[in-house]
Amino acid sequence: MRKTSLVLAGASALLFSTTALAGSHGVKAMQAKALDDTIAYEITEGLTTEVGPRQAGTEQEARARVWSVKKLKALGFQNVRNEPFMMDTWVRGEETAFVTAPYPQELKVTALGNSASTGEAGIEAEVAYFDSLAAMQAVPDGSLKGKIAFVTHDMARTQDGSGYGAFGPVRWIGGGVAAKKGAVAYVIKSIGTDYHRNPHTGGAGFLDQTPIPAGALSLPDADNLERMVKLGEESKTLVKLKLKLTPKNIGQQESGNVIAEVTGRNPSLPMILVACHLDSWDLATGAFDDGAGCGIVTAAAKQIMDHGQPLRTIRILWAGAEEVGIWGGKAYGEARKGDKHGLAMESDFGADNVWRVKFNLPAGAKALEDEIAAALLPLGIGRSTDKAGGGADIRDIIANSNLAVIDLNQDGTRYFDLHHTPDDTLDKIDPKQMQQNVAAWTTVLSIVANSDVDLSMPMKE
Amino acid sequence: MRKTSLVLAGASALLFSTTALAGSHGVKAMQAKALDDTIAYEITEGLTTEVGPRQAGTEQEARARVWSVKKLKALGFQNVRNEPFMMDTWVRGEETAFVTAPYPQELKVTALGNSASTGEAGIEAEVAYFDSLAAMQAVPDGSLKGKIAFVTHDMARTQDGSGYGAFGPVRWIGGGVAAKKGAVAYVIKSIGTDYHRNPHTGGAGFLDQTPIPAGALSLPDADNLERMVKLGEESKTLVKLKLKLTPKNIGQQESGNVIAEVTGRNPSLPMILVACHLDSWDLATGAFDDGAGCGIVTAAAKQIMDHGQPLRTIRILWAGAEEVGIWGGKAYGEARKGDKHGLAMESDFGADNVWRVKFNLPAGAKALEDEIAAALLPLGIGRSTDKAGGGADIRDIIANSNLAVIDLNQDGTRYFDLHHTPDDTLDKIDPKQMQQNVAAWTTVLSIVANSDVDLSMPMKE
Repeated sequence: MRKTSLVLAGASALLFSTTALAGSHGVKAMQAKALDDTIAYEITEGLTTEVGPRQAGTEQEARARVWSVKKLKALGFQNVRNEPFMMDTWVRGEETAFVTAPYPQELKVTALGNSASTGEAGIEAEVAYFDSLAAMQAVPDGSLKGKIAFVTHDMARTQDGSGYGAFGPVRWIGGGVAAKKGAVAYVIKSIGTDYHRNPHTGGAGFLDQTPIPAGALSLPDADNLERMVKLGEESKTLVKLKLKLTPKNIGQQESGNVIAEVTGRNPSLPMILVACHLDSWDLATGAFDDGAGCGIVTAAAKQIMDHGQPLRTIRILWAGAEEVGIWGGKAYGEARKGDKHGLAMESDFGADNVWRVKFNLPAGAKALEDEIAAALLPLGIGRSTDKAGGGADIRDIIANSNLAVIDLNQDGTRYFDLHHTPDDTLDKIDPKQMQQNVAAWTTVLSIVANSDVDLSMPMKE
Repeated sequence: MRKTSLVLAGASALLFSTTALAGSHGVKAMQAKALDDTIAYEITEGLTTEVGPRQAGTEQEARARVWSVKKLKALGFQNVRNEPFMMDTWVRGEETAFVTAPYPQELKVTALGNSASTGEAGIEAEVAYFDSLAAMQAVPDGSLKGKIAFVTHDMARTQDGSGYGAFGPVRWIGGGVAAKKGAVAYVIKSIGTDYHRNPHTGGAGFLDQTPIPAGALSLPDADNLERMVKLGEESKTLVKLKLKLTPKNIGQQESGNVIAEVTGRNPSLPMILVACHLDSWDLATGAFDDGAGCGIVTAAAKQIMDHGQPLRTIRILWAGAEEVGIWGGKAYGEARKGDKHGLAMESDFGADNVWRVKFNLPAGAKALEDEIAAALLPLGIGRSTDKAGGGADIRDIIANSNLAVIDLNQDGTRYFDLHHTPDDTLDKIDPKQMQQNVAAWTTVLSIVANSDVDLSMPMKE
């Protein structure tokens, strides 16, 4: 604890007075208690068992809101409420893929969000294979006329999840590129790192093009199709795929943000917003994405509440409709831009250990930042000099109100094994690692919620 | 190599003369060559890519036989042929499971082989939960009337695969027990060890009862249903499941055994039979079960053939229709009981390292046995004092002809993650471990196929 003491020695007198409730001794005790937390797991278990999949805009997401309001009230939070909003809703239909020649067999496919329908008859066409998005981008417009474009990639595991940024465009814009080149449909190797026959869904983007049918193959199936294409090139044999995807848009439906608070002793101080998202994709029960996040931020807020009323209000946001377009985050950003926020944080990257903290705080909060970084060291969490960015659900409120942000980065090594697949289920949660998350969040909240340091960010030019 | 020399010093003069072709130096060279084998993987890749799933009695299994005959001829084997037989055929239909109350959500299910159909309307009924087969066996006959029986288990990973023997009865006889107790349908926690949303199929047995609809839930889904049942017990709420399984029996269909040989220099010596099975379950491309086995035994036989004509004939059997009732093994046992076999071996447990050898040889072959055990040591393979038993496809010929057997046991630690699931695909093969298998088989075959030691087993009493 030597380092902690050294850092604390440099902190301002003001800081000491306002964080007295937690303090360096208090933080240690709260961390120890948080490492025994059961609430985060209990919330994740409840959402995945008693609700199950909860796709935005569906009856299942509505049941999730009812469950959540009841649960947050039972946990003792204040001002628990559902703030409804309307959103465009796309729902999955049938989905099958068969290689019809030269090696007839079924492939596992799932429709990507916003995919058009093939119609009941499906589409049978020659496969045009590309080993990267760039390779497809390089062919002339119109050159894929009548074909099903098929794009693979080389995504690898990364601790920081950066593989998703690098290879995500295959899904995020590939459908638009394929459409521009003339393709009648688009299939991709799932944006993921696991080798199970469970394709990864997720929203597809089509640039300025009219959506075409777009699906993801599981990684084993994509590799198999790639082998067939390569054998076909050797033997001058076309590989043909029959794709059936029948999703549809069902128009505007209701979703909502569930909100709860730990009210602070000084309501004039800007509040701390801690967020996650309540909706999941329809394929799984959404334990990692993002039941766990809701469990973690809520369990930490409860640790603070149980310790005694904090100085600042902590607001918990379980956002609706994140997966399908961040509707909840946008609705919150618009509806709540008048509220006084001091800091925003989000947990939406599974439940494995927090390994790194990032800050984006004003210069005047340097001592606070040092105190937090030092207090996280005993949990194995290092400090990054990169700037914190927050998560999808707090992006709008951060932008609208120019907010300070702290990121507690979770280990993403296995995140893209599970992300948007049927495998995102409760058994994937490691309770010990989840407790480390709660301890990290409790640490940060115990310090910032009891500090009156000015967190206002300098005005952007 | 000290131990090998000591063991060899004890071997008979006759043995040395007949195994001169391989010898201790020859075996080492052949092992080294086999550790670079590419044929086993090539066969597995071809079957999984160019054929895909190959359920017994289907057009896909017929295509597999055509592919296999062509491949075995191209590899240079002699007497390559297909020996057809007829068999009862069961095929999968639709399969869905929904919890309808109190926590509505879909569960992943697959029909077990021989399951009856629920009909198009499906069956909706209360779930009667048991945490073991024994617990269901303990309730009175008729007491499950109108209910869907649901049985879980505690199968764990084992290197020797013994968990399958311990927990397999949940699938092998549970449907019959459920029917006897009056259940309208039967669902189980898949007999497996992985946590993916891919249920494990496999043949179900119904004792003397008329089959009822029987399905396996994936392990995450079974755990979820178990949690719902326990919540339901607390709140006195019935858990209801709607199950739809529409498999059907399509009567007698053709299957076949594909056979190839390395003819020996002395045709009067009883041959060595090396077996695997060509069919797979329909859910996957059957890499581990059992494309790999066919690849391994065939690659080893080719190593022997390429080294020079062995003393004894080696016959390769790629059996048909193993999964659905060992039809190929039975047909071979009946049709070929007149052939002179000296030894039978089978590879049907994936492609991970061989870790143990077992023998069931006559007392007069003790020196041969010691030589083989010593030659396997450099591959990391220990010797078990348990008796070898062979595999399913050679069970009948072993029984009919009272054959000697050697087992090369593969590491089964992850076998039941993949067994009978959609995840049994090419990517699961570790080429290095597969090569160790080929080296182990080459070692055994190089010794026994060049030995004229009498392998006749003593007559049973």
